[in-house]
Amino acid sequence: MAVEDYAASLDSIQAARNRIQGQIRVTQVITSSSLDALAGRSLFFKCELFQRGGAFKIRGASNAIFSLSDDQAERGVVTHSSGNHAAALALAAKLRGIPAHIVVPRNAPKCKVENVERYGGKISWCDPSVESREAVCASVKSKTNAVLVHPFNDPQVISGQGTVALEFLEQVPQLDVIIAPISGGGLISGISIAAKAIKPEIKIIAAEPTGADDAARSKAANSVQTNKQTCTIADGLRASLGSLTWPIVRDFVDEVVTVDDSAIIEAMKMCYERLKVVVEPSGAIGLAVVLSDKFRSNPAVKHCTNVGIVLSGGNCDLTGLWESLPN
Amino acid sequence: MAVEDYAASLDSIQAARNRIQGQIRVTQVITSSSLDALAGRSLFFKCELFQRGGAFKIRGASNAIFSLSDDQAERGVVTHSSGNHAAALALAAKLRGIPAHIVVPRNAPKCKVENVERYGGKISWCDPSVESREAVCASVKSKTNAVLVHPFNDPQVISGQGTVALEFLEQVPQLDVIIAPISGGGLISGISIAAKAIKPEIKIIAAEPTGADDAARSKAANSVQTNKQTCTIADGLRASLGSLTWPIVRDFVDEVVTVDDSAIIEAMKMCYERLKVVVEPSGAIGLAVVLSDKFRSNPAVKHCTNVGIVLSGGNCDLTGLWESLPN
Repeated sequence: MAVEDYAASLDSIQAARNRIQGQIRVTQVITSSSLDALAGRSLFFKCELFQRGGAFKIRGASNAIFSLSDDQAERGVVTHSSGNHAAALALAAKLRGIPAHIVVPRNAPKCKVENVERYGGKISWCDPSVESREAVCASVKSKTNAVLVHPFNDPQVISGQGTVALEFLEQVPQLDVIIAPISGGGLISGISIAAKAIKPEIKIIAAEPTGADDAARSKAANSVQTNKQTCTIADGLRASLGSLTWPIVRDFVDEVVTVDDSAIIEAMKMCYERLKVVVEPSGAIGLAVVLSDKFRSNPAVKHCTNVGIVLSGGNCDLTGLWESLPN
Repeated sequence: MAVEDYAASLDSIQAARNRIQGQIRVTQVITSSSLDALAGRSLFFKCELFQRGGAFKIRGASNAIFSLSDDQAERGVVTHSSGNHAAALALAAKLRGIPAHIVVPRNAPKCKVENVERYGGKISWCDPSVESREAVCASVKSKTNAVLVHPFNDPQVISGQGTVALEFLEQVPQLDVIIAPISGGGLISGISIAAKAIKPEIKIIAAEPTGADDAARSKAANSVQTNKQTCTIADGLRASLGSLTWPIVRDFVDEVVTVDDSAIIEAMKMCYERLKVVVEPSGAIGLAVVLSDKFRSNPAVKHCTNVGIVLSGGNCDLTGLWESLPN
């Protein structure tokens, strides 16, 4: 299959980087000798939780929005998302000075809804079902003529997310493997296209919750599978692969490693207590993978001593912490 | 009063930096446009929570330990501390390969005791009173002949802490003011000596909890006052000034600004939710000060647009957060 058949390429990702560089942050990479000792490898954590909006999503959202013609942009954008893409799209729209309509399920995490509101997104509520979400989205679209920016199944979004890998490999050229979370697959698609074009021998591992394991099942079946229902604390990782991300995941992601919620929570604790960074469950899953028996015993990554882990976001509900303090 | 009369000088702080540079991290400085907007100034956060051991304390502890002669070092070191100095001394002793004896009150925060243990410190428990602490400390000293490294009232410790300012002013030369927490005064003493030697016009503000406000009262009375009792969530800020730190605080710290626990907690929330870093209450107090009415209405800092804030540590008890998660 020729590279042109995929939704993104190194060229489109480099173009994305030029397009969005004034809108996003180059996020830092941190390390921890105690976690290195625990993993038996050198770990490099790419801190997308320090990204604008608290997650990598602004990369794809701003690439999509700044790719629009003036005529398109004027109509505004719309998306359906319970989480970080929604806030990122609202923020990117604000940066271009256009309206963003966000369809949000009523059970979305409060902190993520607040982020949408902080950036001036116009919220339309829907029920937490695909049908309700699509119906409300269609209604908003027909009323406003806004351009839909899908959370992951969009070439510009995938290319924007791929800029993570361009930075990461400049910051840590010796990476042998990159581990990133997988949900709809936008992030890992962009990363795998960029990283393998720059460094063909690099391994790309997708980290997925066992309670939403469509990507692992899709890879095993070599055909796209969906999540009929999901059960995981990682609220950012409940989507299923899309038509544009699946071919990239199929051909460029070396392995999907699943971990359960208790491993995700354990990894979160380590991020807070050792790395001193605030991650959401979805953000910590890469660390859970590198510490898992599945990864440790995998012969394909045995010689990967320099491991890049994308801490994808830090928009976490901390109510429990605040309630535990005096006052 | 000549500079030589103080316990530290720019020379001793630069010597400390050379001595400890292989042992410590140059910590990064982070920013947040949303907090800038809230404060109406440009804020620069020096992240000592990313320092080895999770706090700035390793700077002073390693300077003290690597200043010892081989004969002294062989006997080991001893200190009394409930917190970050204890862990830092254990870590610095481990780096030099010598024993560290730590006298810890039985009510010390669990996460801080765990840090001492992780770094191989030998713990002797005492009751939470000055008398018990001193008695146990004397007993350990007489048994082991170990060298006492005081948490703050020690010239090498003060000089080590001052290296924060050397880095900070190299990273952000335009700083108009530095705000750092004050407890025993080791950190702010080192910072104020270094910063004013490099940039005489810079302002130095000490941030202190209202529930342990000996420094504010000492400055007001122009004589050293102590805390008879303390009442603050900031467990790292309950000590009173010492004989070596008071003259420096008196002559080099422009102002002590007190804030109450609710302001400290509010600042903690902002650090977690906006900056995405884990701070302990003592670590967040500088942000509480810059957002306080006292600071905003202070004519002496009216024209200070570039504000450096030392986020001094991140060893925080997060049990409430973990208990709020499923499983």
